[in-house]
Amino acid sequence: MFEQLGLIGCGLMGGSFALALKKAGLVRRVVGYSKSPATTARALQLGVIDSAVTEAAQAAAGSDLVLLAVPVAATEATLRSIRTQLTAQTLVMDVGSTKVDVAQAAAQALGDQLPCFVPAHPITGKEVAGVDHADAQLYQGAQVVLTPTALTQDSLVQRAQALWQALGCRVSVMAPELHDNALAAVSHLPHLLAFAMMRSMLRQADGDTYLSLAGPGFRDFTRIGAGDPQIWRDILLANKKEVLAQAREFQLALQELEQAMETDDATALQTLLTSASQSRLQWTMGQAMASVHKD
Amino acid sequence: MFEQLGLIGCGLMGGSFALALKKAGLVRRVVGYSKSPATTARALQLGVIDSAVTEAAQAAAGSDLVLLAVPVAATEATLRSIRTQLTAQTLVMDVGSTKVDVAQAAAQALGDQLPCFVPAHPITGKEVAGVDHADAQLYQGAQVVLTPTALTQDSLVQRAQALWQALGCRVSVMAPELHDNALAAVSHLPHLLAFAMMRSMLRQADGDTYLSLAGPGFRDFTRIGAGDPQIWRDILLANKKEVLAQAREFQLALQELEQAMETDDATALQTLLTSASQSRLQWTMGQAMASVHKD
Repeated sequence: MFEQLGLIGCGLMGGSFALALKKAGLVRRVVGYSKSPATTARALQLGVIDSAVTEAAQAAAGSDLVLLAVPVAATEATLRSIRTQLTAQTLVMDVGSTKVDVAQAAAQALGDQLPCFVPAHPITGKEVAGVDHADAQLYQGAQVVLTPTALTQDSLVQRAQALWQALGCRVSVMAPELHDNALAAVSHLPHLLAFAMMRSMLRQADGDTYLSLAGPGFRDFTRIGAGDPQIWRDILLANKKEVLAQAREFQLALQELEQAMETDDATALQTLLTSASQSRLQWTMGQAMASVHKD
Repeated sequence: MFEQLGLIGCGLMGGSFALALKKAGLVRRVVGYSKSPATTARALQLGVIDSAVTEAAQAAAGSDLVLLAVPVAATEATLRSIRTQLTAQTLVMDVGSTKVDVAQAAAQALGDQLPCFVPAHPITGKEVAGVDHADAQLYQGAQVVLTPTALTQDSLVQRAQALWQALGCRVSVMAPELHDNALAAVSHLPHLLAFAMMRSMLRQADGDTYLSLAGPGFRDFTRIGAGDPQIWRDILLANKKEVLAQAREFQLALQELEQAMETDDATALQTLLTSASQSRLQWTMGQAMASVHKD
């Protein structure tokens, strides 16, 4: 149980966190700040926060739990602005999709208060942004990755773990580098490819005709291509090196398939498609794949 | 209303067509043939067909409607085997995902009976195959493309159109070449990319770890990567030229995005992502896109 959540950023992710904590009876009150006063006012109106403040530092003041739910690029400045409000007992978390850059930002910004900070990434979301779409169920069943630094207090990592578990999440703890590699592979690159698919339609003279024939497969394949351009600009740039590396891995896998097509090698093509199809059928969200399907 | 449907291939697509026709009261009886006697027996047991025969020609005999729901590669041999059973009044259709090769197969196989044949592609499906998953609702709301040849009887094209519309489909008529281009762009290439994404995970030593962190975005992006390997081998080879051409278009769009990332050009990246995201948000399945979003 927390006395006070200081919510910095009252959009979809932050707003849903506040609602989920309230629903679970894990917090007594929520003090909210958003860059846009209209967002804070709306969050108050919707009961997402209990009081609104006009500075991030005011949301952190007196809070035993602080959640940063701001664009990743704003992490350093935000942490810097709340540093003097933190005590050794405050649990501070973020929800950013990249973690190496967040760890660097925290090291720059927090100084003595670095042990308070437990970088977190709840792997969930919606294609729609904003507090109006905040949803107490958003985190239910989601995977959450914590990437504590060597200086992070163990007791706060455990508190963070218990908190996310109480919201129905599965929690993993790993190094920020492994997190960023993995997310480049299974989230950032798929987003980039879905954006590229839409761009390919826009670039072609007959793209509109093609799109008029697209069915449910295309709909699901490109769903993440509707993602927020600003958020995805920041993620793709923050994790650029790993995303480009995963793009090269993907190209190699694609070339292998194209090669089988070009040479009309039906046997090779079927073997490749079978291993891909089987691995997708065996995969379950949040579970490691059986190594028997490695190749 | 048709007197008798001769169903050749009693799997998911064929079985669903028979169930939909029966439900809509559009056929008096269904005679079914499948390559595998076990499938035909199961279709009979499930009430998908009313009687089972052991040759494709027997299913066509006396039928005023014949549906081929067999792998695209089997089209020519199947049409050849039923040719002598067809009259000028028989409406013959297929459900294949490629149409240029089907048009060629029909021209080779049907001779004088070519005017009977209305090549059709209902753009729908499931990741699970087989008559056990046949579903009277499968075609409801689906787009169906008809690609008649210059020799196809107009009256049969109109009958085909009315039939699919009665099953709740939206029907387009176009040249087989345009169909194959469009489907390469919005169906075959996305499938190839989803297969390549799974292959890229399989090819990497840390692929299992990466997959254990994959969330709903990855789930939807790769859903079509679970497609039937044999069916997709045939489609990718049958429409090879167009799929590889679309893969090149896609690569150009991807390179444009990668270039903006590599040069840290946040403005260019956001512009590209915004146009992609907006076009996806504006797109509705089965509708042409507003040309205002061309770029």
